Amino acid sequence: MALIVQKFGGSSVANPERIKRVANRVAKTVAAGHQVVVVVSAMGDTTDDLIELAEQLTERPSAREMDMLLSTGEQISIALLALAVQALGVDSISLTGGMAGILTEPIAGKARITDIVPRRILSELAVDRVVIVAGFQGISEIGDITTLGRGGSDTTAVALAASLKADLCEIYTDVEGVYTTDPRVVKAAQKLDRISYDEMLELANLGAGVLHPRAVEFAKQHGVPLMVRSSFHEKTGTLVEEEAQMEQGRIVRGIAHDLNVVKVSLIGVKSRKGNLYRIFQALAEASVNVDIIVTSVVQDGVSDISFTIEHGDLSVALPVLESLLPEFGDPLIEREEELAKVSIVGAGMISNPGVAAQMFGALAEAEIEIKMVSTSEIKVSCVVEKSSALEAVRVLHTSFGLDGAVEAVVSGVNELE
Amino acid sequence: MALIVQKFGGSSVANPERIKRVANRVAKTVAAGHQVVVVVSAMGDTTDDLIELAEQLTERPSAREMDMLLSTGEQISIALLALAVQALGVDSISLTGGMAGILTEPIAGKARITDIVPRRILSELAVDRVVIVAGFQGISEIGDITTLGRGGSDTTAVALAASLKADLCEIYTDVEGVYTTDPRVVKAAQKLDRISYDEMLELANLGAGVLHPRAVEFAKQHGVPLMVRSSFHEKTGTLVEEEAQMEQGRIVRGIAHDLNVVKVSLIGVKSRKGNLYRIFQALAEASVNVDIIVTSVVQDGVSDISFTIEHGDLSVALPVLESLLPEFGDPLIEREEELAKVSIVGAGMISNPGVAAQMFGALAEAEIEIKMVSTSEIKVSCVVEKSSALEAVRVLHTSFGLDGAVEAVVSGVNELE
Repeated sequence: MALIVQKFGGSSVANPERIKRVANRVAKTVAAGHQVVVVVSAMGDTTDDLIELAEQLTERPSAREMDMLLSTGEQISIALLALAVQALGVDSISLTGGMAGILTEPIAGKARITDIVPRRILSELAVDRVVIVAGFQGISEIGDITTLGRGGSDTTAVALAASLKADLCEIYTDVEGVYTTDPRVVKAAQKLDRISYDEMLELANLGAGVLHPRAVEFAKQHGVPLMVRSSFHEKTGTLVEEEAQMEQGRIVRGIAHDLNVVKVSLIGVKSRKGNLYRIFQALAEASVNVDIIVTSVVQDGVSDISFTIEHGDLSVALPVLESLLPEFGDPLIEREEELAKVSIVGAGMISNPGVAAQMFGALAEAEIEIKMVSTSEIKVSCVVEKSSALEAVRVLHTSFGLDGAVEAVVSGVNELE
Repeated sequence: MALIVQKFGGSSVANPERIKRVANRVAKTVAAGHQVVVVVSAMGDTTDDLIELAEQLTERPSAREMDMLLSTGEQISIALLALAVQALGVDSISLTGGMAGILTEPIAGKARITDIVPRRILSELAVDRVVIVAGFQGISEIGDITTLGRGGSDTTAVALAASLKADLCEIYTDVEGVYTTDPRVVKAAQKLDRISYDEMLELANLGAGVLHPRAVEFAKQHGVPLMVRSSFHEKTGTLVEEEAQMEQGRIVRGIAHDLNVVKVSLIGVKSRKGNLYRIFQALAEASVNVDIIVTSVVQDGVSDISFTIEHGDLSVALPVLESLLPEFGDPLIEREEELAKVSIVGAGMISNPGVAAQMFGALAEAEIEIKMVSTSEIKVSCVVEKSSALEAVRVLHTSFGLDGAVEAVVSGVNELE
């Protein structure tokens, strides 16, 4: 008998028919002899509907009341799912985040989990009940309902799995698992059987979109085995686990891309100690996420600084930078839009020099210009023109030997190798 | 500065426009220098929509999960109202029943309030916030959300007013107050300025529908002054308070009617000690509410027993009675449908003999047959044919001097006397 945490997103519980399908999945896991804790998000459009109501009342809704409002979405889902599971003759009970003992910071709208006190969950499991917990929410010390912000339900599931020392945390989604790259871009993309936390983290951060990075980080910290799998059929998905447990395979495990990149350059910055700190601290205070940073060699007392940000942050970043110009000798600000980032990820890179070179070579052969480069121990990212980004993904997927049997992937049902 | 509890029902918060109107009302009370605690029900049709969802999942939903589901209705209302009040520049905060410290029995769907621990409410009032509390719900000892059943939001408001020692509990509704009788039946019906708890209780039990009897009982027990008033304009409504504080007025204060009455008779019940207990205990166990009971004199060792129940309970009551027939010497069961109950209510009756006689006389003069009679210290009820019930109400309203100026009442704006 294993203890399994299963997480279902909003589209999996969007209507009564889908809720019944989730209930069947849960009941099957119980029938296989396992204890089950289920985490669910709000039904499909519920959250949007509630936000629309609030917008009719005020232009600047308080985050605290929005948490009170939006947390009802998951509360509806858990109650309905509990009813659906009971209808199959399986005893079950729903718990809000607060009732499940999910304690958070007192920060409305984006609280982080500070502790989990799973007393109630354990006592319900002890009497053979399926416990259905509201994702995305917790309770602050003074008893206010809080929400966890983006990726919240994934994080709830992983945190509960860690706290309960669950044998497995299953994240159900609308894809079959983690792929070597986006199957919509490369038809020969293959589902991975296994991937390490670090690789997943790079892929998640690089916009693979299957799992929220926050949840992956939490899983890594607490050693929670994660399984990403489809809620539409029963095939095994992708297991995310410690690198040590992984079969050694290909050096590059996946190719990610991000089409939403802008490069900003400050040309002719007067060289002075603390320049970089001043600039990037100011951007951080304005909540602008800076990704790749490149600085030129100092010549004649000035240098150039370039960095990439998300396109959406441009309108925030520019005024911040302009306000700083005088103290840096009034450098020019240049920006380059319509860029993309293409990255190769794989834990095997650490012990395999030459991977970056192979990447540059493949792109050069395809006549794709590399505008910036960034490396970590397990990834190499290149900034390229947006118009050639998808071609770059295809070229790299082939170059690093990731292409599978195209026909099988198109039908969407192949297992890796 | 007074502390005022204001309760708004579901139709008062049915859409954003109405929520804004309620917010305005609350803000005005604050502007007048008062502290305000608001109790709201779920928005209009929310509860029905949620029930419909549940019905698509299971035929026999568990009461515990229905409480989890339906309590979201009020949680949505309180958050939206808090936002609307904030939009007017008035600081406010919403609290679920549990957060407001409303402790209940652990009985899903119809829990009674066992205690109120208003610590959080008091601390929010202390920092000059309007506190908006979810009606109809509380929390059990183990932390489950419970609902209070019918009339729940009225009861929440009165219980909070008692616990907070509020100066007044205002119940906002779609009528202007408590009337001498249903204005749809008697155009000359008059709004009462004041009424005693006991009179209100008889009227509430008799189907006047303005206030739930449970809330009135609670108000009487704790001496909470209640004001029933319209949410559509600012006129003073009806104050419900202790009899001692009431101006002495007419003997009969109001006429109530109930068109939903069935009389059941057991003809030829073998006389034996404990008969009545056996019969009415069995009906009570089946949750059948028995109202008027009449027994005949015993002759030849048998007697007849008649009683009235609600029409909707007939299908439950008949099988219960049939199962008992053998032990009572197989009496005949007769039933008479299409009946109604007409009642006169007034605290002054206690010290005024002849009120019942005047009622019988007025009905006889109008050739309305009286089928059963029941009396209490402050009311007399007669069961009559349903077809003559409304005529009976009119006759009695006139006979006991309750008719007001018809024109004024029709326009709906007159004050009593």
